[in-house]
Amino acid sequence: MTATNSTDQQSTRVKLEQMGRAARSASRLMARADTNSKNRALRAIAAELEAQRIQLAEANAQDMQAGRERGLDAALLDRLELNDERIDAMIEGLQQVADLPDPVGEVEDLCYRPSGIQVGKMRVPLGVVGIIYESRPNVTIDAASLCLKSGNATILRGGSEALHSNQAIAACITQGLREVGLPETAVQVVDTSDREAVGALISMPDYVDVIVPRGGTGLIERVSREARVPVIKHLHGVCHVYIDDLADEQKAFEIALNAKTHRYGVCNAMETLLVAEGIAERILPRLAEAFELKGVELRGCARTSEILPHCAEARESDWSEEYLAPVLSIRVVADMDAAMDHIARYGSGHTEAIVTENYTRSRRFLAEVDASSVIINASTRFADGFEYGLGAEIGISTDKIHARGPVGLEGLTSQKWIVFGDGHIRR
Amino acid sequence: MTATNSTDQQSTRVKLEQMGRAARSASRLMARADTNSKNRALRAIAAELEAQRIQLAEANAQDMQAGRERGLDAALLDRLELNDERIDAMIEGLQQVADLPDPVGEVEDLCYRPSGIQVGKMRVPLGVVGIIYESRPNVTIDAASLCLKSGNATILRGGSEALHSNQAIAACITQGLREVGLPETAVQVVDTSDREAVGALISMPDYVDVIVPRGGTGLIERVSREARVPVIKHLHGVCHVYIDDLADEQKAFEIALNAKTHRYGVCNAMETLLVAEGIAERILPRLAEAFELKGVELRGCARTSEILPHCAEARESDWSEEYLAPVLSIRVVADMDAAMDHIARYGSGHTEAIVTENYTRSRRFLAEVDASSVIINASTRFADGFEYGLGAEIGISTDKIHARGPVGLEGLTSQKWIVFGDGHIRR
Repeated sequence: MTATNSTDQQSTRVKLEQMGRAARSASRLMARADTNSKNRALRAIAAELEAQRIQLAEANAQDMQAGRERGLDAALLDRLELNDERIDAMIEGLQQVADLPDPVGEVEDLCYRPSGIQVGKMRVPLGVVGIIYESRPNVTIDAASLCLKSGNATILRGGSEALHSNQAIAACITQGLREVGLPETAVQVVDTSDREAVGALISMPDYVDVIVPRGGTGLIERVSREARVPVIKHLHGVCHVYIDDLADEQKAFEIALNAKTHRYGVCNAMETLLVAEGIAERILPRLAEAFELKGVELRGCARTSEILPHCAEARESDWSEEYLAPVLSIRVVADMDAAMDHIARYGSGHTEAIVTENYTRSRRFLAEVDASSVIINASTRFADGFEYGLGAEIGISTDKIHARGPVGLEGLTSQKWIVFGDGHIRR
Repeated sequence: MTATNSTDQQSTRVKLEQMGRAARSASRLMARADTNSKNRALRAIAAELEAQRIQLAEANAQDMQAGRERGLDAALLDRLELNDERIDAMIEGLQQVADLPDPVGEVEDLCYRPSGIQVGKMRVPLGVVGIIYESRPNVTIDAASLCLKSGNATILRGGSEALHSNQAIAACITQGLREVGLPETAVQVVDTSDREAVGALISMPDYVDVIVPRGGTGLIERVSREARVPVIKHLHGVCHVYIDDLADEQKAFEIALNAKTHRYGVCNAMETLLVAEGIAERILPRLAEAFELKGVELRGCARTSEILPHCAEARESDWSEEYLAPVLSIRVVADMDAAMDHIARYGSGHTEAIVTENYTRSRRFLAEVDASSVIINASTRFADGFEYGLGAEIGISTDKIHARGPVGLEGLTSQKWIVFGDGHIRR
């Protein structure tokens, strides 16, 4: 048994290395592919998805059936489903990425130096991007299209429960690449559900330049721990709204309500509300009523419970929890400094907002809070690639290195230095 | 014995964690320190170095004595020495960093989105930077000044052979920080030569945001393999000059000579010369003569040996070697495509140059070669932070993620998204 497993693992690793080598050579061709070829490929893939609707539905039905037999819960089955509407969205997404400006080849800061050489920075693809994700098969198209447009080769490893759906989508991608003469191995989908595939993919620095894991905390922690290549990761979203005592009450009310209740299961939803002591008695009862109407469970600090007698008491663990659910923890703080201390201690560096009319405090909050997005007088829900104008995102990075916050095409590129001389030598 | 070692290791780890916690709190204060305070600190450190010349010389004499007793070779002893001239250079370096623009707080691309929010990116420090380096004590000042100016806290781990010198420099830094009221733990120098200190420093993701190793391949490979935090690393510099058959012969001659012989022990020196078949017979004899005069040993491919009968034969391993010495490998290639294939296979992604007068080839080389610096008609020796206008560099990154090529103040920062609203909520 052990021997068989070990042989399987070896053969998975050999297969992944073959894919890595193929991706590495494809990446050289992709890096020099012109904008028009890349856009034509994206549109050809969209046309192929349109033409293969029946095949996609059949493949997905197999996964759904297997999922039901394995007892997947309703939420997971919902994410796994590939209905007509979702195929429409994938097609629409491909068109949108085709319409985005091509970042590759952009030159910045080109200027002459005292030595006479001209120096600048040119945007270039990263090379080979490995993406590891769970259940939702539409990620296959999102990730492939962003990598393709940014001139990268990519190896996609989706969830085992979506294997047939992902293979059907992969066939459409391959066909689209083939039609326009781009290398078919520019997008490769791992066709095994062997867990060892993840281990192999994240430990081939010669073939993979960066790994983007998308999924639950367990997956991301495993990838971060074991990866031998750089990882662009999105860990937790423990986001705060701080209502300052000098806030406009109506703005504060609407922002807090929107940040929590616009959608619950998203990383940029507010998880903890911080309220300055000076405004807590005025704003909390009104907010509590609104939250109650929406069915949001409140868990407050001792001071919150004095103001809201029905409020459950928050435990220490509540302050670090990403509920992703209609639950909100509330803490009354002395002032903005106490709020920023709370955020520094419990925040996950994702998105932090303040509501205030005070100029100096807004400037301090903006400068001093360490998070991928810092927001003044607006909802945390705006922290999103589409809202920021990136057009699409491959994830939201809670790292500080390379890419921070929503990661779009630019996050999938790097810059190289370029130098123009006319026979210049160092003296 | 083992028990003692294990206890020592534990106490080193405990000490490093204390330093990490202190660095993390200092980093919050450093992030908000204004430009003027940071510049005053840099100048106060410079004044302190000036005032402590005797103490620095005494501490360095201890290290030099110990080094001689341990039998360090002349090159290592030279790097270890801290004479008056080198102290002058450290003082000058501090002044230069003080004169550089402060990157922290710069806002880019601030614009209104259709939703009405205003979105931009603000440059912010990375947080805590760990720097691991060998013998040269002046790196302590270079690294500390760049981290300080970019608003980071830093933990420096120098070579054990420079322990006393680094401690004496650290005392000057601490005094300078104290004078201007910045946290003394913003720059901490590890005061133990225990190797476990490196292991501890690179495995504290809670306290250290990025590691910059500076030193030999052994150190950098160890750090890359074992680090649990992101690493900005400089591995090899196997740099090429390709002389195209459409090159200006005089430019090609001067550039090739300069790229190899301006300095030998530097990462941006040429290690392999690639020459197009169409120009090889004309240019190689002239170049060989010039290299011979400079005492450069040549190792050529079979075709090179036909043209240069005295040339030794290159082995396969020569193509991947970073000589850092007066040795040059030479290969005659059919054309630019063959040159680019050679570079893709053997290059280390550091710096690659072409000499050509042909427009189309210059454009293709620039776009297609994957290296941190791509140079047309100039010497590889220009790939350097000072030459590029960064003012100073903490290293040259051969990575693609985050920072590529010479890393200056900007490479020690990240960007966060900032959002200004007026009560905006997501609809």
